[in-house]
Order: sequence, then C-alpha cells, then structure tokens
Amino acid sequence: MTTALLTDQYELTMVDAALKDGTADRRCVFEVFTRRLPDGRRYGVAAGLGRFLTQLTEFRFGDEEIGFLRDRRVIDEGTARWLADYRFTGDVRAYREGEVFFPNSPVLQIEGTFAEAVMLETLALSVFNADSAIASAAARMVSAADRRPLAEMGSRRTGEWNAVAAARAAYIAGFGATSNLEAGRTWGIPTMGTAAHAFTLLHDSEEAAFRSQLDALGSGTTLLVDTYDIEAAVETAVRLTDGTLGAVRIDSGDLPSVVASVRAQLDRLGATATKITVTNDLDEYTIAALRAAPVDSYGVGTSVVSGSGHPAAGMVFKLVAHHSPAGEWVPVAKKSADKASIGGRKEAGRRLRNGIATAEVVLTSGSVGPDERDLLVPVVTHGEVDPAFLGTAGVEAARTHHKRAKAELPADAERIGRGDPAIPTLFV
Amino acid sequence: MTTALLTDQYELTMVDAALKDGTADRRCVFEVFTRRLPDGRRYGVAAGLGRFLTQLTEFRFGDEEIGFLRDRRVIDEGTARWLADYRFTGDVRAYREGEVFFPNSPVLQIEGTFAEAVMLETLALSVFNADSAIASAAARMVSAADRRPLAEMGSRRTGEWNAVAAARAAYIAGFGATSNLEAGRTWGIPTMGTAAHAFTLLHDSEEAAFRSQLDALGSGTTLLVDTYDIEAAVETAVRLTDGTLGAVRIDSGDLPSVVASVRAQLDRLGATATKITVTNDLDEYTIAALRAAPVDSYGVGTSVVSGSGHPAAGMVFKLVAHHSPAGEWVPVAKKSADKASIGGRKEAGRRLRNGIATAEVVLTSGSVGPDERDLLVPVVTHGEVDPAFLGTAGVEAARTHHKRAKAELPADAERIGRGDPAIPTLFV
Repeated sequence: MTTALLTDQYELTMVDAALKDGTADRRCVFEVFTRRLPDGRRYGVAAGLGRFLTQLTEFRFGDEEIGFLRDRRVIDEGTARWLADYRFTGDVRAYREGEVFFPNSPVLQIEGTFAEAVMLETLALSVFNADSAIASAAARMVSAADRRPLAEMGSRRTGEWNAVAAARAAYIAGFGATSNLEAGRTWGIPTMGTAAHAFTLLHDSEEAAFRSQLDALGSGTTLLVDTYDIEAAVETAVRLTDGTLGAVRIDSGDLPSVVASVRAQLDRLGATATKITVTNDLDEYTIAALRAAPVDSYGVGTSVVSGSGHPAAGMVFKLVAHHSPAGEWVPVAKKSADKASIGGRKEAGRRLRNGIATAEVVLTSGSVGPDERDLLVPVVTHGEVDPAFLGTAGVEAARTHHKRAKAELPADAERIGRGDPAIPTLFV
Repeated sequence: MTTALLTDQYELTMVDAALKDGTADRRCVFEVFTRRLPDGRRYGVAAGLGRFLTQLTEFRFGDEEIGFLRDRRVIDEGTARWLADYRFTGDVRAYREGEVFFPNSPVLQIEGTFAEAVMLETLALSVFNADSAIASAAARMVSAADRRPLAEMGSRRTGEWNAVAAARAAYIAGFGATSNLEAGRTWGIPTMGTAAHAFTLLHDSEEAAFRSQLDALGSGTTLLVDTYDIEAAVETAVRLTDGTLGAVRIDSGDLPSVVASVRAQLDRLGATATKITVTNDLDEYTIAALRAAPVDSYGVGTSVVSGSGHPAAGMVFKLVAHHSPAGEWVPVAKKSADKASIGGRKEAGRRLRNGIATAEVVLTSGSVGPDERDLLVPVVTHGEVDPAFLGTAGVEAARTHHKRAKAELPADAERIGRGDPAIPTLFV
C-alpha cells in the first residue's frame, strides 16, 4: 500500500510547476510548528513521528498512482517520470516522540530539495495534527487520574484507522492499555476488554451472563454491573465469585455517588479487593472530579480520541529557508497579518533550572546553550530513517521519553484548568 | 488487508464466552442510532454505509489475526476455529447513505447470530460516527454557502485515512470537490488545488512564482495572493494574464472586507470574470457571514473534517431483540437511568405532507404507513452485499439521495443557528 496519494493535489501541481521552471531542485528547509496551543492548554505532546517515518518509507508513486495523476491532468509527462523515481533523499530532525511542545516549537524540520520535501506536507500534518491532538489530551487525563490507570476505549468514536493511531498516541502519553486489537498487534500496546451490555441482554438473566463470562474469563474478570439494577448486579457478582471478583465496571449514572455506594456495598459483602472501573463519557474534567471517589481505573472513549475538544493540534508546515541561485540560504516567511511566521532554520532547546523547564528557546542562529536540553534530534539522514524511532520499540521509547519530558515541567503545568503555556517560548 | 482487528477486544471475549455457553447462535437484531443530535443541530446526515459494507466484505480472520488473539489469550482454541471460518451470513438494512436522521432513527439494523453480528459493532460505529459527523457538518456549510461551491481541503487536519473518508462524506453532503488525491482515486471525487504559500516563497519574486504557475497550469488557474501584499499581488496577477485569470485565493485577514476590496480592484483592472475563492479557517458560521460578500467559492479545512465541533455523531450499537431458546423474538433494552433505550426491532418512515417532512416515525410493531417514506432499505441479504451501495456508484447515489432528503426538510431546518430537531421523532 503506497501512501503517496494521501496528499493534497496542490503539492503535486507545485512540484510540476517547479520542475518546469527550474526551482524544484532548490535546497529548502520546511518546519512543522503550531502558532498557539488550544485555548487554555498549558503544553502539547508531540506524537506521530514513528507513524510518519513508517509512511515516509512507503511514499512511492507506482504506475497506478501516476496513471491517476496523469488522467486527472495534475501532472505532465516529465513530472510523471520524476515521480516514478521519487525517493526522499533529504534529512529530517524532530522533537522526540512524546516530547512536550509549546507555541512555535519546531517539532519537525525537513531539509531537502523543494520538490522532494514539499510533497510530504499533507502526510506529515495529517499524522502530527491527529496524533498530537490525542496525546495532548491524553496527557491531561493522565494528570487528572493522579496515578490511577487509564485505558483508551474510543475506537467506536473515531474513524477506524484513526482509532489505531489514537490508541498509540494515548499510550505514549501514559495510558496503560487500549481496547483496540489492531493497536495491540501493530504497536504492541496492552489490550483489554471483557463485555458490553449486549452480552447481559443476550442471556435469559444477568446471572446467566455473569456465569458465562466467569466461566470463560475467570473470576479475575471485570463484570459490567449497570445493565439493569446496579445493587442487584453487584450482589450477584460477589455471590458468584465468593468475593474474589476482579472488578466491576460502571458505565452510567452520577459516578461520584454511584461509585461510593458500590464501594460500600462491595466492602460490606467482603469483596474488599474487587476493583471499580468507570467508563461513562469521561474527560479530564470528570476524571479530576472523581479524585476523591474510590475509583480504581478509568476507561476513556470519545474525549481522548477527539482530543477533548481540540481534534487537530493546529500544526502547520512552512517553508522557512531556501537556497538562492548562488547556493546561499535565504530565510523566508509569509507576511499575512494573521498568519505571519519567522523565517530561517531553527534550533530549539528547553532551558532548565534544577531540572525544571523555565523556557522553550527557539534560535534562528547559533546553537543550543549548555543549560538547555537540545530538542531536535536527527531521525532521517540522507533519506535513511533511523529505525530506533519505528515500530513497537519506537512506541516504548516515546512513552519513556514522554514521562521524562513531562516530569521536567513546572508543577502547575499539570493543572487541568485554563492557563497560559507552562513556559514561555523565547526567540533568540 | 483485513479489517477484522479494527475491533474492540470485548467483542471477541463476548464471542468466546457465548460460544462456550451456547448463546452464540441466538438470532439477534442490533441497531445503530443516536440518542440525541449535537447541541442545537436540526438534523444529521447518515454517511459511511458504502465504506462499512466494503469493509464488511474484508472482515476475515486469517492466521495472523487468530495467532495474535490466541497469543494475547483473548480467545481459546474453539473460538479460533470458529473465527477462521467466519463470514457474515446475516441481513442488514439501513438508511440510504446521504439520508438525514434524527434522534433514535435506526440508521443501521443488523440481523444475524449473536456472534456474527456483535463483532461488527466497533467497525460499524467507527465508520458511521466519523463519516456521519463530517457529512452532518458539511450539509450545514452547504446551506450556509447558499449555492456557491465548496471544496473540502482538510486532509492536513485529520488522520491520513480519515482524510479520505472525510472528503467522501463532505462530497455526499454537497461539497463539490476535495484536495485529497486518494479520495479522487478511490471514490471518484473531483480534486482540486494549485499552490501553497511555499511556492511563492520559494521563488525570487511573487511575479516569478505566478509566471511559473501560469506557465504550468494556464491562466484559468487560481493564484494565491496573500503571501506578501494582497493589492500588489492582485495587480501582478491581472497584469500577467491580461485580465483572464481564473481566480484568486485569499487565505488570511478579515475576509468580508478583504474580499470586497479585492473584488473592487479586480473589476477596476478589468478582470471582471476573475473569481475569488477564500480558505481562511472557515466554518458554517463564517461562511454564512460571507453571504453578502462577493465570494465565488469556499475551501473548508479543519471545521469540516472535525465535524465543526462534533467529531463523532454520537451513534451507539445496541442489541434490541434476540431469539428465546424457543425461537421467539424477545425485545431487550438497557435500563440504566441515563442511557435507557427502546427494545424491539424497528421500522422507520418519514411522514410527509405535500412533500415536506413532518415527523420521523419509528415503529416497534407494524409497518410504515402510506404517507410515510420507508427509510430502511436492504443492503445485505444472507451475507451478500448489494453492490449498488459500493464504490463510486454508491457515492454518486448517496450524493443524489442526500439532495432529495434535504429538500424534504422544512425550510427552517437549514437555519444555521441552534434549534431543536427539525422534525420530532414519534414512537408508534
């Protein structure tokens, strides 16, 4: 499967025109960044790098793709020949996957010829905008959950392939598991899930459904107790397992009060080790509101896969410098009133004091200072992707790196309420 | 590529338990519906059917999928054998793709054994929730645009495969084109796009960039005029084409005032046939606010691919009836306080008076009346998908049907402001 047509048509018409006028081979630097964080967010989490790099290796124009582009008159014969030979041969540096970012952080930097690099815009932004939106929301939920485990269960609330990417992004940001099986297979993420209301409704009684599930999955399983009457269901569940039930799941009702009464009932019945998991339309706010409740774990659906109100991370892909005909770097930037940006290739460092971040430093010249953690690392060199960022190993590395990067943030960055970016972005 | 693992784990654990306890073969009816429309929306647009049916035909468990499920201990040996032979053999009825829907409209109805049907939950909801969210938002933008053409340009703001589905859903709801090439190839949708700001920035002058684009694409092309100074760019664009330029694109600024001054400048320069297209973070509200402006067409990105604030359509997949051991239909429904639903297999009709819809009629017994348009049509019979709903022909049929269904709505349904559902849902 080629990823080459997951692309806006204008990338190809630009390549076509640039090949004709001789600018196609000009060396260029493109950067991906966001002008601002979503309203009130303190930081973002960069995700998608491993997916983007995988797709970069599959970005090839075969006969079918070229035939389509010629039929639609998007490209001419010369461009068709150029595309047939297309391989990205440039360099890419990026924020490590899982890294936090702020306004104007250059999370991805692509250097190559205009033609080879501009074509990657659509794919890079699709992946980074979607995955970073999810990771950014997920990280807030992890903070709100205050060390209690979270599972991503939103596959039913987003496109079927987005669901796989969403599970991956949420895991990088600290979720512990997903319901999505393809995410388990492709990215090595722990998977979970036991039964839906349909399973209880299918059986002639709730007790028959519980017995069946216990027979199949053992008493360590999680029984869904809110199909009919929660109190009766909890009583049945404890009785059938002699109090050894792993957990009960509650998917409706006013959770703080329901959870408290279920906990009291479980304890009264002797099932003190039975855990309570909740899954009713949670987001970072409702998770935080359950901090005082005896909840043991959370399952989160719609809100995490849709970025909790911000389904795209607001990233843009901009040409920031190109070679002049004489081979000198020329910084460039759009001048539009509301979309101005800063030209020139950037370096980026996170300034730290006693291990705590105090500023995001974006440099248009010079290099990252001694008290700054260098944020841009090479991920593609002369077209060769560094395999450390790919596959399941890449996901685990990203998850580990995210913990480190989040731990560097000032303590109040984890506040769920609205605020300014946790640290300022300084251009130097 | 199999779609079988685009599935929540609990579907498989339920199948595993039901195979063991003998309920797996109980005949069941599942329905997909939404309990409510997003806040203030007047109607929704059902989309995704053609994609779902395509993926249903690819829903197969091969050795790799089964090996993964066994390794993860999701299923046992008996279930593994059952999955290896899995083919959906049941029946599916659905609202035609492009049909409008209301709270509790049964947009999809699947009848089959419990095991064969329950497994389709995740995939069905992923597709219907994502595609219907986009089509529902797109339809409002089409109303707001008041017959001026709209192009979907949001690929960079959503996951890379969601982007293809989004282009398709927006086209069904009345958009005229997409920037997404894969959507053009797979679904036959007209594609468009000329150049980004990077193309202007790459060149040594704006004039050089415009000349290059005009050489490659002819004077009928659309030139992007807001990289530096709009007035100067428009002057250059008209001069280079002797006033025959196809269109200018404006992607920044206060659009009502900028568009008015560009129109006046074009007319003053004699380019009275040159059109104006705008693309600056539009949604249905900003499109409506441009009704009085001399805009000729709109390009819409983020807001359409993210459902304009509602990225999932809120659809759920519920068991509504199953056979008793004696082979009688038993209606079932969850009793939870905030998620109660109505049991039993539904019929659905749109009640019309003089061709205008007056109610959504959902029947739990009996059949659709003579003054009601029958909404549920067979799409899969004994496992055989009706090919009329697939591929590019399915998309065109959906687009045509959408126009018809929207035209039946009361006039004020197209109001962009918040309101109640345009017609009530009556249970009879």
